[in-house]
Amino acid sequence: MTRRKIAIIGLGKIAQDQHLPVVDKNPAFELVAVTSQRGITHRGLPTFKTPAEMYKAIPDIDAVAICTPPDVRHAIAIEALDAGKDVLLEKPTAATLAEAADIEAHAQRRGRVIFATWHSQYNPAVEEARSILAGAGVKSLKISWREDVRKWHPGQDWVWEPGGFGVFDPGINALSIFVRILPVTPFVKSAELTYPANRQTPIGVQIVFSSTDPDGPALAADFDWREQGDEKWHIEMETKSGHKLRLFRGGASLSVDGNVTVEQPSEEYERIYERFAELLDNRQSDFDITPLRLVGDAMMIGKRLTTDAFDW
Amino acid sequence: MTRRKIAIIGLGKIAQDQHLPVVDKNPAFELVAVTSQRGITHRGLPTFKTPAEMYKAIPDIDAVAICTPPDVRHAIAIEALDAGKDVLLEKPTAATLAEAADIEAHAQRRGRVIFATWHSQYNPAVEEARSILAGAGVKSLKISWREDVRKWHPGQDWVWEPGGFGVFDPGINALSIFVRILPVTPFVKSAELTYPANRQTPIGVQIVFSSTDPDGPALAADFDWREQGDEKWHIEMETKSGHKLRLFRGGASLSVDGNVTVEQPSEEYERIYERFAELLDNRQSDFDITPLRLVGDAMMIGKRLTTDAFDW
Repeated sequence: MTRRKIAIIGLGKIAQDQHLPVVDKNPAFELVAVTSQRGITHRGLPTFKTPAEMYKAIPDIDAVAICTPPDVRHAIAIEALDAGKDVLLEKPTAATLAEAADIEAHAQRRGRVIFATWHSQYNPAVEEARSILAGAGVKSLKISWREDVRKWHPGQDWVWEPGGFGVFDPGINALSIFVRILPVTPFVKSAELTYPANRQTPIGVQIVFSSTDPDGPALAADFDWREQGDEKWHIEMETKSGHKLRLFRGGASLSVDGNVTVEQPSEEYERIYERFAELLDNRQSDFDITPLRLVGDAMMIGKRLTTDAFDW
Repeated sequence: MTRRKIAIIGLGKIAQDQHLPVVDKNPAFELVAVTSQRGITHRGLPTFKTPAEMYKAIPDIDAVAICTPPDVRHAIAIEALDAGKDVLLEKPTAATLAEAADIEAHAQRRGRVIFATWHSQYNPAVEEARSILAGAGVKSLKISWREDVRKWHPGQDWVWEPGGFGVFDPGINALSIFVRILPVTPFVKSAELTYPANRQTPIGVQIVFSSTDPDGPALAADFDWREQGDEKWHIEMETKSGHKLRLFRGGASLSVDGNVTVEQPSEEYERIYERFAELLDNRQSDFDITPLRLVGDAMMIGKRLTTDAFDW
């Protein structure tokens, strides 16, 4: 097995919680450097302020994982591809759909592997739900993705700024599962976006979907940041044959007709890096922007409602 | 020359003003039927309430032009492709980006020609501006697309409903010229969307773009429905070599350094149907969703502002 030299760019919370420890223990990769604007270090590895300095100092880096905020990902991805690196991107890929499309086109031009990750897709329960729906068809599906923003984004004002996505930030995880398990293509038919009076991104979103299924299954989503107590991240489905499926714990567990059939510890990032190694071995890319496109469509045609001001 | 049997679906204002008279005089096409839910007729041609009835009654229709409102275009396009028809679509292609992508994928599966039209692109002045910018590069470009909504959409409340696009309805014409003439790929960097307090779509939009040009040309757009008097539909550009270009009259005229170099009567739809005949001869599709994607990106990351209520 080729051991790939990899670097991680952007050492925020998701890099520290997931990417660094997961890459450290995956034998397919050798973590050789990190880039951190704030100068964060890891295991005494070389740390650089910018990717350009890193590529110059360590020319034989094979691949990079980009874990920065979305607004700078496009420029960093293009720079990495131009430097001849294969690229893994955290979700949600880029700040806009045009930037995401340009990253994909540029990777093709450069002949590099590009991998847009959606971590919530990497759960055995998600694969099992996908397999059941592929066989039995879907009669109805309801996403409920409700959490307390004060618990999950305490004091992070950027989630409320333009481009910060608001409750779509967790909601896009649900949408990434949705597009993975659904045996048909969904379309946003209508949406209601509820904005706090003093904020620029929605705190609550309701979406009704149509699809390519002529039987017109009932498909809906409810994202809410006003949930009190424990988060409710689940998707309830009924198959055309009448079975009731429930994905819960963010996609880590599945029950069928009330019986839990899959219940595994969440190893999303372990699976992501296994998949990346496989893509690199096969020189294949995996670039799916459909979850981000559903967000864009919902924001393009959604009805805007205003609710109470939100303060931390 | 093969004379193609064509039908027009949806006999609203744009079909009556442009598609019907233009197709009538183009010898590449034989207009054989129309579909109108409201029962509008044309030259005594067979009129049908639904496309399904039309396809059954006149099975040898080769192609259809879909001129309905955007929200029903996806279903009508899929039905047409399934019936083995080649398809021309009015702008803005579909209600959402996911629907547009599905139409393109379905046309490929069915082996049919699909043509997403953007009428403002079909002006000689637009081609001339494209040619100049391709050679000289762009230093700055400013779109001003300002008109009086009371003049152009009198009493049409649907433009203010969710999915009605608001001032993006004319603005997308400017964006379709923008992506055609620009020698680089633009990205929405930031946007301000101004909504009347009592309406669901913006009355004014300001966009700042970045691009794939490392020199960072200044690219901006200003769409406004509050213009009084004559409409101002123009794009002002400066090339890297210092020449000043001005596209005006909606893209029908071009001046270079103050001298009008192209000034032609607008024959956008004549050019569209010539292009469609060419695509049909070559069994080629032309499906560009970038103008709609820029609208989606602006609505996804734009800052929302509220202004005075709007009433007719």
